[in-house]
Amino acid sequence: MYGILGGMGPLAGVGLMRRIVELTPASIDQAHIPLIAYSAPQIPDRSTAILHNGPSPLPAISRGVKTLSDAGAKEIAIACCTAHHWHPELSAASEVHILHVADALQAELQARGLRHARVGVLATAGALQSGFFQDRLRRLGHEPLTLSQRQLDTLFDPGVALIKDGRLEAGGGLAKAAAEALFAQGADLVILGCSELGLVFGDRSERVIDAMDALARLCVARWWRPLEGARMPQSAAHAEGLGTVS
Amino acid sequence: MYGILGGMGPLAGVGLMRRIVELTPASIDQAHIPLIAYSAPQIPDRSTAILHNGPSPLPAISRGVKTLSDAGAKEIAIACCTAHHWHPELSAASEVHILHVADALQAELQARGLRHARVGVLATAGALQSGFFQDRLRRLGHEPLTLSQRQLDTLFDPGVALIKDGRLEAGGGLAKAAAEALFAQGADLVILGCSELGLVFGDRSERVIDAMDALARLCVARWWRPLEGARMPQSAAHAEGLGTVS
Repeated sequence: MYGILGGMGPLAGVGLMRRIVELTPASIDQAHIPLIAYSAPQIPDRSTAILHNGPSPLPAISRGVKTLSDAGAKEIAIACCTAHHWHPELSAASEVHILHVADALQAELQARGLRHARVGVLATAGALQSGFFQDRLRRLGHEPLTLSQRQLDTLFDPGVALIKDGRLEAGGGLAKAAAEALFAQGADLVILGCSELGLVFGDRSERVIDAMDALARLCVARWWRPLEGARMPQSAAHAEGLGTVS
Repeated sequence: MYGILGGMGPLAGVGLMRRIVELTPASIDQAHIPLIAYSAPQIPDRSTAILHNGPSPLPAISRGVKTLSDAGAKEIAIACCTAHHWHPELSAASEVHILHVADALQAELQARGLRHARVGVLATAGALQSGFFQDRLRRLGHEPLTLSQRQLDTLFDPGVALIKDGRLEAGGGLAKAAAEALFAQGADLVILGCSELGLVFGDRSERVIDAMDALARLCVARWWRPLEGARMPQSAAHAEGLGTVS
């Protein structure tokens, strides 16, 4: 059984669950992956904790992980990019494997055959300060591009706040303007590195990678791989490049 | 914490979770309802069990309910109308309250002020044979209308099978034709009494009630009511008419 820790925000968690279902090659109910999704919206704000020494979300996230593993989850995906700042502590304390969104992103970049690309990272200021996206991109030979503080303040942050308030159109407008700012900087492609963004970017062109899509694809690939090699869907090949990085 | 038992099919369970989030009057993550959703797609087919003496889904559904209550769910909604055939047994065996989709439907009909209506019921042959929708409608003074066996065989069943296969457009066409058949019989309104249908009926007109929408509204209403009467959203009023029927 796969576990999903969501609630950060709630629609983003639902979105990850939906993508896992949609990407599963099943035509009847019984062929689908059993999932357990815990939407724990009371987890303290991740970016505030990283940037401004706000209350740490780690205890609440750890309790969420334990709830899922106690319920039978054998692997867990977290539907919040910024929360991966605490992945090392969570992984060390957890009995079950916790996927890392940077592994999912790496698999997606490798599946697309990208080398030495300029990759714009749309992510919270907290995730950018944590640096796990940029570190992974550099390790893979890509050049990360990020928004300026002013662009975060005027485009990204208000955009995400509007999406969390359910005002998807207004929030989507700002988020897309933030993506355009990265393309204007010279980005070859842009990563939607915040779980809310996939809710408003209808566009899944070659120039955009939604980190939550990549995470969903990795969940499905890992689920199918041990079961039956012959029936492995093409997306499973994405996971082959992972090696031992985590 | 609210529990959702899904997987029947998986997209319908995700849809119920999404509707609960959307109907919650919250503008920041932390104001949302904590939810735990268990998508258990391996539960045997409900309609086959009722109609053709197929393997009973009751043990698997019971295990799902127990997984959710063990994880901390205080109330549980089941994202499958037909599964409510076993509601009496599930309720008797469960330590936590399990909502009934017919209660949600009743609240919705009463909120709309409907009396002595002819109500078309779009539901599986299993749910229709179980009769819980028709019984509740008659008890409320409404006249239930249902599809003929031939209409079930040629419109409803293949429509739902296509939706479960992810072919939403083709399945939606057949499901909408089934709804039209009920309107042609003289229905004043039609209940989408199968959890898959809300995925394909964009139309939420006055002539259509999606049972899963009603169930989501009941979840939100029950969550808000005990917390703070003053801030109760309007939808909570829907639940007031419930009385002791279950």
